[in-house]
Amino acid sequence: MPPFGLLHMRAWVSLFNQLLRPSGLVCIREVHFHSQVSEAVLTSQLKPHQEKSNFIIKTPKGTRDLSPQQMVVREKILDMVVGCFKRHGAKRLDTPAFELKEMLTEKYGEDSGLIYDLKDQGGELLSLRYDLTVPFARYLAMNKVKKMKRYQVGKVWRRESPTIVQGRYREFCQCDFDIAGQFDPMIPDAECLKIMCEILSGLQLGDFLIKVNDRRILDGLLAVCGVPESKFHAICSSIDKLDKISWNDVRHEMVAKKGLAPEVADRIGDYVQCHGGVSLVEEMFQDSRLSQNKQALEGLGDLKLLFEYLTLFGIAEKICFDLSLARGLDYYTGVIYEAVLLQTPAQAEESFNTSGQKIRTTETQVFVATPQKNFLHERLKLISELWDAGIKAELLYKNNPKLLTQLHYCEHMGIPLAVIIGEQELKEGVIKLRSVASREEVAIKRENLVAEIQKTLSES
Amino acid sequence: MPPFGLLHMRAWVSLFNQLLRPSGLVCIREVHFHSQVSEAVLTSQLKPHQEKSNFIIKTPKGTRDLSPQQMVVREKILDMVVGCFKRHGAKRLDTPAFELKEMLTEKYGEDSGLIYDLKDQGGELLSLRYDLTVPFARYLAMNKVKKMKRYQVGKVWRRESPTIVQGRYREFCQCDFDIAGQFDPMIPDAECLKIMCEILSGLQLGDFLIKVNDRRILDGLLAVCGVPESKFHAICSSIDKLDKISWNDVRHEMVAKKGLAPEVADRIGDYVQCHGGVSLVEEMFQDSRLSQNKQALEGLGDLKLLFEYLTLFGIAEKICFDLSLARGLDYYTGVIYEAVLLQTPAQAEESFNTSGQKIRTTETQVFVATPQKNFLHERLKLISELWDAGIKAELLYKNNPKLLTQLHYCEHMGIPLAVIIGEQELKEGVIKLRSVASREEVAIKRENLVAEIQKTLSES
Repeated sequence: MPPFGLLHMRAWVSLFNQLLRPSGLVCIREVHFHSQVSEAVLTSQLKPHQEKSNFIIKTPKGTRDLSPQQMVVREKILDMVVGCFKRHGAKRLDTPAFELKEMLTEKYGEDSGLIYDLKDQGGELLSLRYDLTVPFARYLAMNKVKKMKRYQVGKVWRRESPTIVQGRYREFCQCDFDIAGQFDPMIPDAECLKIMCEILSGLQLGDFLIKVNDRRILDGLLAVCGVPESKFHAICSSIDKLDKISWNDVRHEMVAKKGLAPEVADRIGDYVQCHGGVSLVEEMFQDSRLSQNKQALEGLGDLKLLFEYLTLFGIAEKICFDLSLARGLDYYTGVIYEAVLLQTPAQAEESFNTSGQKIRTTETQVFVATPQKNFLHERLKLISELWDAGIKAELLYKNNPKLLTQLHYCEHMGIPLAVIIGEQELKEGVIKLRSVASREEVAIKRENLVAEIQKTLSES
Repeated sequence: MPPFGLLHMRAWVSLFNQLLRPSGLVCIREVHFHSQVSEAVLTSQLKPHQEKSNFIIKTPKGTRDLSPQQMVVREKILDMVVGCFKRHGAKRLDTPAFELKEMLTEKYGEDSGLIYDLKDQGGELLSLRYDLTVPFARYLAMNKVKKMKRYQVGKVWRRESPTIVQGRYREFCQCDFDIAGQFDPMIPDAECLKIMCEILSGLQLGDFLIKVNDRRILDGLLAVCGVPESKFHAICSSIDKLDKISWNDVRHEMVAKKGLAPEVADRIGDYVQCHGGVSLVEEMFQDSRLSQNKQALEGLGDLKLLFEYLTLFGIAEKICFDLSLARGLDYYTGVIYEAVLLQTPAQAEESFNTSGQKIRTTETQVFVATPQKNFLHERLKLISELWDAGIKAELLYKNNPKLLTQLHYCEHMGIPLAVIIGEQELKEGVIKLRSVASREEVAIKRENLVAEIQKTLSES
């Protein structure tokens, strides 16, 4: 199946890369879909027609425009993601771009410094939203809603230091799907993982794996290894780096920088280097140390149940129990998950040998052209009929354009059909319908214009 | 034709009202579509689970959440508007929510005080965008683009003093369609007016009229009436109030507050109370005073041409030449237009006698139910099959829900079909397919499940 029907795979992968951060890591938590890119190099710096002649025209640091071509790709991605959310029965919500500053304070731990505050211009103190989770929680509390399956697509803002290496943008789009409420355990979590699989399969970016862990297992693990509770947070953040640096480096950080006893670090190392399927869950149940910890046992019990459901959903082989998965935010309390692409999009692209396939940035179906001068009135009458029939149509905004210019425009924009009207056609009560690609022309009766075009479009 | 297929007209008008400002005035300039509402009364003020017990959970002043029901309406509106923009061959663009502060300074005259600034947290000084026009101009300059037909849909922010009377929100959505470039006169303007007609007709909110004027006619008019150039701006802003207050009140403001000679005001009054079709354009051409002014003549010439094209588009009778239309912003230099509904949506609603028709906030097609205990596994296998076939499906996140609870959920959510599996069905290798509305059930073979559901859905 070609991805999204219209786009060739090679072009798709190549374009998708433009919307990804360079690491090739698609980061999804609770089906929050982040699309970030490396900072575009803003080379075109113009002097504006303004008084201040030293003023440079650019977008703010860490932000970018999305060109029509990039918008086509983003729309296709969002359609796919939203289509999946709807398939799973979610309602759509929208919240303001900013919240009361107090609402965001103390929700993000160390990351709070990345929040954009608005200037105090009198009235309430406000901040731009940092994610879509806290606004959703605020919505639930404000409206006393106890149960809700909702999705939200929108921009969020973070004052990251954008670098090419990190490839993080300060403004980016998140797609959140959340199931809020009290339910029997692991059924909603299993559905979230199913959704992640559907979306990642749908995007056709190559093979992927979803890592799962549980905060209770992680906390239990630290406890039984002998980490003092005051160091839990710091040690967690070291463990979380295992996907980027080696165990030796992580161990060094724990011992030398965070003052952990070497034998405690070694005990941790035995666990956090483990990953596997449901059999690893079983194995941890038997582990003499871990099975002493009540919290950890609860987490393991839930993971076992989760894998049972994932098997019924046919996605168990895509999910990997990874004891090193920690995630930073404090508001995660139970099961946590994160997806990784096994092949970076860059590799996938190479194996496809990027083609130069062009993407259409408009959907125009018919171009209205004339070979003669003084035919603007006829062109306007004609195109108005097409618009009123729901046909996507364009013409050049010139009184007397050259025929060649008009046909070049069709080719350049990928418009499939041209309708041509001139003196001869007007006299005979016909118009010419031209296939732009094949250059074939047929004469059709003026009164059958709309019907003939609709027929031709439905056949192609 | 029912508006948007799914919604009954009465429900549609009633819901649309929720998205409008109370004045009932749909304000469109250059096909910028503003959707604003009266401030929702936030009555539910909860104490959060936080330290600060006096902290009130609410959205910032002048902003609001859009509930799932409101989102359904907004999505339908945006689909219609964007569909129209695409029919006219526009490309989509996106720009950041904030711009360099300098970029917005001096663009909005008196309204500059309404711009939201971001706090100086080090680095560039930033402001939230006030409209989508200036960011578009910045995009064109930055990328040295000379010609572009683009649309953009996005939120903008203005620090208005929100009151129920004004009914303005501080965050609202704009839909912009612009044709940038040098073209033969009035062809792009005629298309913009055609687009406004298509959108306003499509929204089915009752009869409407689009007022047009030209800044050059307005300036010429002020000059020939004897207004000193230093007073142009102030007098323009008085004239612009003629749609809200009487000519006597406007005249009083000009003379008493703005120091205009009474005879000059009377001369202005003779003009700005005129409105009509193309015949009024002809009449003004003959006007002894106005025809002395070169600027005014240019404007009138363009309006005449515009009406010629509007006639070819079949929309001339929707357009009204109104010499009082002024508009505030300085960046309008030529033709200006604005649409008004002749019947307020409130009136339209009354004449339809609002019904209590329910709007679905999800698109779920099939609910997976069971009458028995311990059937979670079967339900999960079944729903997974449906999702994989692209069917929108839900189940309750409970191990052993009651059948009645499940069927009530279907009725409450408007889900048309339910698939029921129990011991008997499992034994016989069938499932029951139930029409929720008629309560009719048919047994179908388990292996034909997806095909039968797709058939049933396509028939309904």
